[in-house]
Amino acid sequence: MTKGFINYRRVLIVGLGMIGGSYAQKLTALGFEVGALARRQSTIDYALEHGFIAHGQTEVTREYVSQFDLVVFALYPKAFVDWIRQYQDFFQPGAVITDVTGVKRAVVPAVQGMLRPDVEFVPAHPMAGRERSGVEYADCRVFADANFIITPTERNSPEGIELVRTLGCILGFRHIAVLSIEAHDEMIGFLSQLTHCIAVVLMDCKDSEKLAEYTGDSFRDLTRIARINENMWTELFLDNRDELLSQMDLFLDKFAQLRDALKAGDEETMKEMMRLSTYRRSFFDKK
Amino acid sequence: MTKGFINYRRVLIVGLGMIGGSYAQKLTALGFEVGALARRQSTIDYALEHGFIAHGQTEVTREYVSQFDLVVFALYPKAFVDWIRQYQDFFQPGAVITDVTGVKRAVVPAVQGMLRPDVEFVPAHPMAGRERSGVEYADCRVFADANFIITPTERNSPEGIELVRTLGCILGFRHIAVLSIEAHDEMIGFLSQLTHCIAVVLMDCKDSEKLAEYTGDSFRDLTRIARINENMWTELFLDNRDELLSQMDLFLDKFAQLRDALKAGDEETMKEMMRLSTYRRSFFDKK
Repeated sequence: MTKGFINYRRVLIVGLGMIGGSYAQKLTALGFEVGALARRQSTIDYALEHGFIAHGQTEVTREYVSQFDLVVFALYPKAFVDWIRQYQDFFQPGAVITDVTGVKRAVVPAVQGMLRPDVEFVPAHPMAGRERSGVEYADCRVFADANFIITPTERNSPEGIELVRTLGCILGFRHIAVLSIEAHDEMIGFLSQLTHCIAVVLMDCKDSEKLAEYTGDSFRDLTRIARINENMWTELFLDNRDELLSQMDLFLDKFAQLRDALKAGDEETMKEMMRLSTYRRSFFDKK
Repeated sequence: MTKGFINYRRVLIVGLGMIGGSYAQKLTALGFEVGALARRQSTIDYALEHGFIAHGQTEVTREYVSQFDLVVFALYPKAFVDWIRQYQDFFQPGAVITDVTGVKRAVVPAVQGMLRPDVEFVPAHPMAGRERSGVEYADCRVFADANFIITPTERNSPEGIELVRTLGCILGFRHIAVLSIEAHDEMIGFLSQLTHCIAVVLMDCKDSEKLAEYTGDSFRDLTRIARINENMWTELFLDNRDELLSQMDLFLDKFAQLRDALKAGDEETMKEMMRLSTYRRSFFDKK
């Protein structure tokens, strides 16, 4: 179905936020003709002024969309599914689409299930979020430190997967991996969503403005991601609700174990938990 | 009782770990004559070779201890209290002692309660810990980013407090504050001990070695301090047990609130908690 990466020369970015803008910036720098659809003209103007895109518009038209053979969706999950439902008719035959969505079970079957048979959707998740949102925070250098996860299903072709793997590669991601949508959502529930929950909760515990002057690196590190886009993350959490609840409960179980050991003065359990965390954390420093 | 900072020229560091070694390094660089007591001769040798100290020994003798007019205790809490009980007779009359202990209610009344009336103990807590321990990780540059908390009691003299404030100042701490021992232990329970509990628990949740390749900055930031000296931290946690349990329960309450909102699909509560965390976290970025 696909025609070899070098023949995809016109790329459409739908949604010019921090991630969509960074894709546009990098792909333009690589010589692609990059177009964009955004809700606000000011976003298009910013991207044009900064040389991120060759052209763009706010209106979704058949004439514009049908010019592109590769389309990247950088929208929130629901907006992405709605867009496909409403406009998929505009794609050119043989187009390949991909996304950046941070949850997969809530999006991939829905989109693949309704998509035209002559268009292939290869789902991907660039794990390169930041605390800030909006095209003015676009910066493709963040990819160098980040992972790019492809989550294909049995509906995907080897050529489609390879095309998106190549996309992740030229965008400059440090590491590219392939996971099932289930394994992806479990992993994200633990590594990303649970950590954001913890940061939010820690920051909500007390009026810490007066504590700021005493704060060392520990509290600062654990709460960096407490500065959060509440609309996006609430949608992501709800779209992965069962997995996130499981991960929260796992964390609560282990937290109760440490709390009970402390309450009972059970030094050996406390030390054992710390030895385990120290051992496991050591694998992260080698990277 | 005290004789003015400039007249304290001989400083004894008891315990040459990461913090004690960093004190020694900086005070030597400032021109003080720094001596040390350590358990192992290899520690003394390392500190001598690196020019951190002028001399040192492993045996606690009256002849050695009585030479110093300022003594800094960089020991674990229990070891500090035991040292005072066993050797306080060796101090010279009018000596001032201070410490670096991370818990205060478990240490300060015990030491001040038994101390000779002609010696003053001014408690302090340099909040400059690192994941590594031992004199080979001593590096006084860490003070530049750290807070120095003095926790005097009604037994302390204004001159003694001022002396230790000056000590924190010349060591190069970014910020010097004065707190009661109760306020200190509450603050530490929340900002430092609770965050270490969270990091340890998060790392203990699952065998994450295979997750390391997917790990973004969030998980990495939240678990940096999961690499932990289990003997020191278990002692610190137990010495602050009531406060730490309160802080853990506060965190658990708020965590349950977010979990229940997620389970119920209560978007408004979720967003409200995220807006609050975002607002509060913003004060930390200004520093």
